[in-house]
Amino acid sequence: MKKPSVLALALGAGLALSGTISGEVQADEGMWQPHQLPGIADKLKDAGLKLDPKDLTDLTGFPMGAIVSLGGCTASFLSDKGLVASNHHCVYGSISYNSTEDNNLLKNGFLAKNYSEELPAAPGSRIYVTEEITEVTDKVTAGIVDGMSGSERYDAVDKNSKALVAECESDDRYRCSVVNFHGGLEYFLFKQLTIRDVRLVHAPASSIGKFGGDTDNWMWPRHTGDYGFYRAYVGKDGQPADYSEDNVPYEPKHHLKVSKASVKDGDFLMVLGYPGRTNRYRTGLEVDNTFNWSYPNAKVLREDLINIIDTRTEPGSDEALAYASTRAGLANYAKNFGSMIESYNKGNLQAKKTELEANLAKWISADEDRLARYGNALNGLNDLIKQDMATQERDLYLSYMGYLSLKSAAERLYRLSIEKTKADADRKRGYQERDMARFEQGLKRVERRYVADIDKAFFKHLLTQYAALPQDQRLASMDKFFGLNKGLNEAKLDKQLDKMYAKSELGSFEARKAWMEKSTADFEKSKDPFIQLAVATYAERKAMEEAGEELSGNIQAYRPKFMEALIAYYKDNNLPVYADANSTLRVTYGNVKGYSPHDGATMLPFTTLNGIIQKYTGEGEFDSPQKQLDLIKAKQYGPYVSKELNSVPVNYLGTLDITGGNSGSPTLNDKAEFVGLAFDGVYESIIGDWDYDPELNRSIHVDVKYMLWVMEYVDGATNLIEEMDIVE
Amino acid sequence: MKKPSVLALALGAGLALSGTISGEVQADEGMWQPHQLPGIADKLKDAGLKLDPKDLTDLTGFPMGAIVSLGGCTASFLSDKGLVASNHHCVYGSISYNSTEDNNLLKNGFLAKNYSEELPAAPGSRIYVTEEITEVTDKVTAGIVDGMSGSERYDAVDKNSKALVAECESDDRYRCSVVNFHGGLEYFLFKQLTIRDVRLVHAPASSIGKFGGDTDNWMWPRHTGDYGFYRAYVGKDGQPADYSEDNVPYEPKHHLKVSKASVKDGDFLMVLGYPGRTNRYRTGLEVDNTFNWSYPNAKVLREDLINIIDTRTEPGSDEALAYASTRAGLANYAKNFGSMIESYNKGNLQAKKTELEANLAKWISADEDRLARYGNALNGLNDLIKQDMATQERDLYLSYMGYLSLKSAAERLYRLSIEKTKADADRKRGYQERDMARFEQGLKRVERRYVADIDKAFFKHLLTQYAALPQDQRLASMDKFFGLNKGLNEAKLDKQLDKMYAKSELGSFEARKAWMEKSTADFEKSKDPFIQLAVATYAERKAMEEAGEELSGNIQAYRPKFMEALIAYYKDNNLPVYADANSTLRVTYGNVKGYSPHDGATMLPFTTLNGIIQKYTGEGEFDSPQKQLDLIKAKQYGPYVSKELNSVPVNYLGTLDITGGNSGSPTLNDKAEFVGLAFDGVYESIIGDWDYDPELNRSIHVDVKYMLWVMEYVDGATNLIEEMDIVE
Repeated sequence: MKKPSVLALALGAGLALSGTISGEVQADEGMWQPHQLPGIADKLKDAGLKLDPKDLTDLTGFPMGAIVSLGGCTASFLSDKGLVASNHHCVYGSISYNSTEDNNLLKNGFLAKNYSEELPAAPGSRIYVTEEITEVTDKVTAGIVDGMSGSERYDAVDKNSKALVAECESDDRYRCSVVNFHGGLEYFLFKQLTIRDVRLVHAPASSIGKFGGDTDNWMWPRHTGDYGFYRAYVGKDGQPADYSEDNVPYEPKHHLKVSKASVKDGDFLMVLGYPGRTNRYRTGLEVDNTFNWSYPNAKVLREDLINIIDTRTEPGSDEALAYASTRAGLANYAKNFGSMIESYNKGNLQAKKTELEANLAKWISADEDRLARYGNALNGLNDLIKQDMATQERDLYLSYMGYLSLKSAAERLYRLSIEKTKADADRKRGYQERDMARFEQGLKRVERRYVADIDKAFFKHLLTQYAALPQDQRLASMDKFFGLNKGLNEAKLDKQLDKMYAKSELGSFEARKAWMEKSTADFEKSKDPFIQLAVATYAERKAMEEAGEELSGNIQAYRPKFMEALIAYYKDNNLPVYADANSTLRVTYGNVKGYSPHDGATMLPFTTLNGIIQKYTGEGEFDSPQKQLDLIKAKQYGPYVSKELNSVPVNYLGTLDITGGNSGSPTLNDKAEFVGLAFDGVYESIIGDWDYDPELNRSIHVDVKYMLWVMEYVDGATNLIEEMDIVE
Repeated sequence: MKKPSVLALALGAGLALSGTISGEVQADEGMWQPHQLPGIADKLKDAGLKLDPKDLTDLTGFPMGAIVSLGGCTASFLSDKGLVASNHHCVYGSISYNSTEDNNLLKNGFLAKNYSEELPAAPGSRIYVTEEITEVTDKVTAGIVDGMSGSERYDAVDKNSKALVAECESDDRYRCSVVNFHGGLEYFLFKQLTIRDVRLVHAPASSIGKFGGDTDNWMWPRHTGDYGFYRAYVGKDGQPADYSEDNVPYEPKHHLKVSKASVKDGDFLMVLGYPGRTNRYRTGLEVDNTFNWSYPNAKVLREDLINIIDTRTEPGSDEALAYASTRAGLANYAKNFGSMIESYNKGNLQAKKTELEANLAKWISADEDRLARYGNALNGLNDLIKQDMATQERDLYLSYMGYLSLKSAAERLYRLSIEKTKADADRKRGYQERDMARFEQGLKRVERRYVADIDKAFFKHLLTQYAALPQDQRLASMDKFFGLNKGLNEAKLDKQLDKMYAKSELGSFEARKAWMEKSTADFEKSKDPFIQLAVATYAERKAMEEAGEELSGNIQAYRPKFMEALIAYYKDNNLPVYADANSTLRVTYGNVKGYSPHDGATMLPFTTLNGIIQKYTGEGEFDSPQKQLDLIKAKQYGPYVSKELNSVPVNYLGTLDITGGNSGSPTLNDKAEFVGLAFDGVYESIIGDWDYDPELNRSIHVDVKYMLWVMEYVDGATNLIEEMDIVE
């Protein structure tokens, strides 16, 4: 599962005011909160779990105590000396950070043969151990009353949450956060021990850890050794500490045993981790709008921008390299949206929503109390969603203007000059003193990612789309600036844009940086055309932002009511309900299982070493270390052979309900022994964030046998194999 | 299986002086001559055949009497009134021929509800019924003695064969031909009744008959209804006759019964047909050279030419359309060669050749008689092949110069002026009076397929490659004409080519046509630069042609000896030997069976109607008639449902050993009942012409159930269903 770039996420999020409600929880569907597991004990037993589900509710007991977050990825302790296993793509930044021209760890892989050879992870790397989860709904919603405006409601929740976090973080070893569930129906406080000294222990060469690259991303059959190891370090007192040579390995209370036997087709699997975000309970209207409007339009826009890049850059040129990352982000989500639209059109998600909402309405109407309480929940929510949809076309174009480097820089700089006039604590997030280093890095990054000709072409394309909108959707200040009131005059626009890009000094980092220190008045008298544009449109953009916050606050009042109705309806039908993923600790279970992506073909649940030889080309994404190829050809499987497969299994498929954020999650067998790592889903699972389909949703895992085989025979990581508790 | 364009075949053939020898006949491998079947009776029985294999040797009995050739495709009689079933792509020309702007039969499909509605097939359409096959080796090789030159040998075979054909064709209802087997070790005379009045009876819409188009060509899973129907007509006397309204349906002695039950996974299958060409017995040297030199170099050259077209044409422009067919031919074989190289590199064909040749040498050395007789067979053959290889790079560039329209036209026209000075019977084939209509059509066709700018770029590219060859590989006359002796001067060459294309009048059809009547002397004094080039290089090109014939004659002396040794060796090991395909009647048998194209995936043996819905996009190659979609959605399967699949099967996979020319072959069950039509092979089978791999070679068939389902429900072809002998 490729982590989208920050920009892609930000722009993607702007599009996604929409979602799914499953009719009924499907076999293997569900990202369960630990405390819910006793409630589905029968299902877990039926599926094959041999542990008491109650054991899974104790966050500091076994096995939960062995599960950690890396922030965006999941990981787990595999030894009593703080050895942490996660995905190669989750420790990638740390491998890259330690690579030099002479010693390219990404290319060659890395192995510390003892503690002293371990390398500091990339700056900012953290290991989070969740120690307490407390429901705090009452405290968070204290003071909220009917009739409050959206903003007032938002502010109340914000203030209560901040107070809870501050109290919890009085112990500075912990990071705390208040997270909403079911759109604000419930709130939980998460308390996480934060380990700040993280070190890189081992990673295979990228030709193993990233084998298949972008081509195989989301694909099956798969042959990726997507694993890597960190170690957690603490001060001599056993408490979290900043990096120091004197620090010692952290000794977790619990770690996972490693099952050398791994799993077979049909075996029970369980994944513990921190899934990022799903949209399973969105309304039919939101689903309809997302799949029939948002995704198709965003996909076209992304393809337009890719086309602009491609027609203006020679492959391999500096210009192409400058836009490589932007292009990859655009393409990744164009593919992602394409897959979702394809799955939506083939599937019955919309029909299921319609049926569910009809049944729900019937159930509500059948009882006067329900009718009084929930009668307006769905319609009220949908009315607010329609408000948002009314300006979605304009919002789409404006949000993609985020790709315009000079325009964005000017707007951020001007906003900074305004926020700086406030006390630090009152400033908008992103403009506080603690954000300034990152702010400057952002201005700096433009340098390597900006080509005036392409930026200009993006701007022209987006303005042309924008100019075709009805008058009442447009910004008067923007229209005035570009003279769009009487329609778009292409020649005139070209001339104005040419002049803007020629005249602006914001193309230079030094110039951009200098503006960080300027006052609002300096901006207002500037002759720089991009600064003039930012100043001219500020008031309207600010008003849009405030309207968005008001709407968001109002939705926060309605969505919990709708979710409450839905949960009550499910409960009345004896169906358990899990919350949408929100980057908090969840458990999902299922089985090893292949699938049929389409008529006439079946995907087998396991791949083997043979597939590596088949895919090997010796170039790019399909290269392999010669030593590995020789070992495979010599059939040196050692104790890691699977008799059924007559080879070493490499990856396997599971029916687990996972999403981004689950990357690096340990995959456990029926006894909670480590049997591999979750790292991706199949192409047909991309829509899984909206709709779990038991026929098509498949998680992809690195088989522990492959990890151990590569570690022992290819990389000689025998010190780590000895450190782990390996069981037959 | 896409039939390559004539040009692609001609150029392809020039590259392929190379081939395979299988080590041992694999399960299901073999394209058997009918007379060989009793020799493998045990295998046929084991595989499940319920007929006596001896019955299959009687060409005029059942079922052989029901199998016919369309020339390039196979077909079969499905009623006692001459109803003939074949592939949609085999009757495509006749559907196209009868299509008009107002009544597009390709798009809409066609159904004659009675005899009077049947339409004449495309001009030249024939149905050939093989009635006699006689071994004539002694007669063909009469007069050949050791020490003859290659040309003498070639002439002797040619003369003897012509005499046998003339005698056989004294009955003008028959077409006869002498065909060599095992590279000239055996010769057989084929006598075929030739039905000249062929009519189009029924074909589904292309959105069924060609569903999936080029995208799905060679691919599985497949959902193509690749079938169509002809009817054979004869005079009232029952004898072949030219088209006449008075003609009556031909009444064959035998026709196939149609099994509505079709087949299931694992069932016995048999295909009777006319496979075109295979290279299973080429030497290791030929295989090595083909896969490591010929295919890779031809692939690169084809991609270069495609690139030249693509960079010089706007999509959809007149220029692009003019080169659409050329480009498709180039791309089809670039893909084909790519697949073969891929399979060769992954597989063990070369190692098998090495092993076989070592074993053969050992077996020959073990016996003095063998040593005397076969000791030099392989080396002698390889020496000749090396002679051919010595000039293969030059031959490659010169053969691809066949794509240059003006150069080729000039050369053909000049040759015509020379050939015309001879008696018609003595002229080279292609230059006799009976060829003149086609010759002129060829000159005419240039008009729609020629763009000077692209032709010139092709010429420059090929000349540049050619000029880099060592001096002794080049043609002195060509070097002189282009001044290449002192190396290639790009600017000078550009200038010369610009001038040639500007000055030549051969771009006009009228001009080209006028040259058909000119004398050799006219050519020799012409100022047209392309004619001057043709005249200047003629003597050297003629000498090359003659050297090629001499070499070919010499190979004809060695290859039979090598084949004789190989056959004797196999016989000594009790292994039956089949001959390479040569467009004559063959039988292959096997089973319905899926396969695994690569690690982690399995292809199922059947596809179903569901796959059509999944692939349907409503556009281009993946459109479907609305009626069909509605029927599928309504699950109206009728009696054609497969209980195992819970749908109607569309296509299935077999292990049969087929190749181009088998298209349209009836697929028979264990009782020789019709259960479908062979129409393609899977991607991994493309190398099958060189090497049959039982794990990967799969034939693709239209399931008779799908044919009948479409005919009954979509097209209402109940008259034809009633006409056939359908059995449960």
